[in-house]
Amino acid sequence: MKRRDFIRATGAGAVAAGGLMGTAPAIAGRKIRWKMVTTWPKNFPGLGTGANFLARTITELSGGRLTVRVYGAKELVPAFEIFDAVSRGTAEMGHGASYYWKGKSEAAQFFSAVPFGLTAQEMNAWLYHGGGMELWREVYAEFGLLPAAAGNTGVQMGGWFNKEINSVADLKGLKMRIPGLGGEVLRRAGGTPVSLPGGEIFTSLQSGAIDATEWVGPYNDLAFGLYKAAKHYYYPGWHEPGTTLECFVNRKAFEALPKDLQAIVTHACRVANQDMLAEYTARNNAALRTLVEEHKVDLRRFPDDVLARLKQLSDEVVAEIADKDPLSRKVYDAFVKFREQVVAWSDVSERAYLNARQD
Amino acid sequence: MKRRDFIRATGAGAVAAGGLMGTAPAIAGRKIRWKMVTTWPKNFPGLGTGANFLARTITELSGGRLTVRVYGAKELVPAFEIFDAVSRGTAEMGHGASYYWKGKSEAAQFFSAVPFGLTAQEMNAWLYHGGGMELWREVYAEFGLLPAAAGNTGVQMGGWFNKEINSVADLKGLKMRIPGLGGEVLRRAGGTPVSLPGGEIFTSLQSGAIDATEWVGPYNDLAFGLYKAAKHYYYPGWHEPGTTLECFVNRKAFEALPKDLQAIVTHACRVANQDMLAEYTARNNAALRTLVEEHKVDLRRFPDDVLARLKQLSDEVVAEIADKDPLSRKVYDAFVKFREQVVAWSDVSERAYLNARQD
Repeated sequence: MKRRDFIRATGAGAVAAGGLMGTAPAIAGRKIRWKMVTTWPKNFPGLGTGANFLARTITELSGGRLTVRVYGAKELVPAFEIFDAVSRGTAEMGHGASYYWKGKSEAAQFFSAVPFGLTAQEMNAWLYHGGGMELWREVYAEFGLLPAAAGNTGVQMGGWFNKEINSVADLKGLKMRIPGLGGEVLRRAGGTPVSLPGGEIFTSLQSGAIDATEWVGPYNDLAFGLYKAAKHYYYPGWHEPGTTLECFVNRKAFEALPKDLQAIVTHACRVANQDMLAEYTARNNAALRTLVEEHKVDLRRFPDDVLARLKQLSDEVVAEIADKDPLSRKVYDAFVKFREQVVAWSDVSERAYLNARQD
Repeated sequence: MKRRDFIRATGAGAVAAGGLMGTAPAIAGRKIRWKMVTTWPKNFPGLGTGANFLARTITELSGGRLTVRVYGAKELVPAFEIFDAVSRGTAEMGHGASYYWKGKSEAAQFFSAVPFGLTAQEMNAWLYHGGGMELWREVYAEFGLLPAAAGNTGVQMGGWFNKEINSVADLKGLKMRIPGLGGEVLRRAGGTPVSLPGGEIFTSLQSGAIDATEWVGPYNDLAFGLYKAAKHYYYPGWHEPGTTLECFVNRKAFEALPKDLQAIVTHACRVANQDMLAEYTARNNAALRTLVEEHKVDLRRFPDDVLARLKQLSDEVVAEIADKDPLSRKVYDAFVKFREQVVAWSDVSERAYLNARQD
């Protein structure tokens, strides 16, 4: 697409005019209006409402000079086409998770969640102060997109199971809805990973078409009613230990903004990143209580040997990403180096403290 | 102070004019200039640079319409007088830690760090989505101040010791620099808490005037050279498991701002809150490595029985705050209720995951 077309398509002409006028008052007609396409159902708790929060924060910070209209999945484009849509300028920004774009770039997977990878706090350390953002920008550069962290679920749950998992042997033959890298790990452990859209999970689990499913955590899982379809609720979510949600912006649209609006979009993503984690942390805890106390859910920790085996397989699966292409190798090497160091610190800080508090 | 005086003193007249003009361009003379007084030495790594980051973010987001000049401790007022200085309008904002103001309000202590209290992630959940911010605003209201979380150190270290701590008995007679609630806990365990300004810690430890000191964590402790004065470096920092730093703003100065600048100040604090935690998490890990590998520091975990005893005493000391006044009771009750629930969630999420990753 030619730049001229892009300017016409996105209303960036109005932006440029605003730029010339400095930070002009928000007069009707001078306002910049952006579209945000998302991979979430409109207003989906936590994820969709997080995208809404981001849009609202941009409006507030800009005093209405830049407003963002949020589109749920399928409203403007299907969920998994938002990356291309923003890349070509159909919308100025998108909200999703980078592991959805592995077909575009294998390296993208490192910026959402990696099995036995980083927690939310560690991810933010890597992204903001460990060189992670620079690598993420490099990965998205060829698509004309600027990425930002814009939400985090925290440690997810291991999932809902209709069979007890008492040993590594119980993973064999297990049919579980678990996408991405976690699914590949399950496959190597002898299970059968299944890919299902959110809307089909409940009935598949209830009918016995699948034995298990992972979803997010207590807050989302309670709303989804999964406790009605499976007995056992396992933890921890080894496959998604601190999933970063993303916002990506069409580079040309971003560059057409005046500097202060550029700063507003960038920092609004940071605010959204932190706010979603705080929301999940606060709400998961209340939802977990409801699940256990009201719905009598059987809460279980995966056995040690199962976690150890999944960790071993995870390290293998993640290491293989590095063989796909030179950029994946570069990101993998940086990720592994940072993980090694941050794990050493977390071991004497968060982990040691959480254990001391609990014992 | 009369409102008329306050407007003159802070240049809020210019603000009002800017408000009438909408979000006017940053023309010289129309700019709003604020002062931020801090409890930190100017540019102190992590804490002082975090205050600088907050000021810079406000400037960026506002396109220079609101600029903030940062003053280190003693530059404008002494460290522990910034609360009063901002309350009376000598400066528009301050950056410190709420436990410094226990002489003003006992309840203030709950918004920085509580021994065996909340981690950074849990604090943010309480503040942003668990009712904590509303309580904090109530506590600061009578001083004409609006509080915000504006930084976090993460879990701190237990401190530097010239004596091994092998049992509860080793705490008896221990002379340790440890202020606040942690100091009171040590006193009840038979030790002697000592209050010393940062600049006197090193020589006191080296001369044997004190046996031990806590400070922050590897990043700050390495820069301070504490490894040259003590042999043993203990973890975890049970007394400060996720210290929230604060920004407080003079309410009248804030209310005189146009809405978008109010949003900018508020959200810049959120960005600073997250950024400091990311910086400490990234830098502590590298500094810890340097301390252990280059300086051969003896890294040790407090024994289980010592941690258990400190926890028991901590709960006692913290509970006594509730007896001081009705507002402290209200905050304590809310804090304890939230802690109980969030600990249940952290137990199956962060804690279970960190243990599974490490084992």
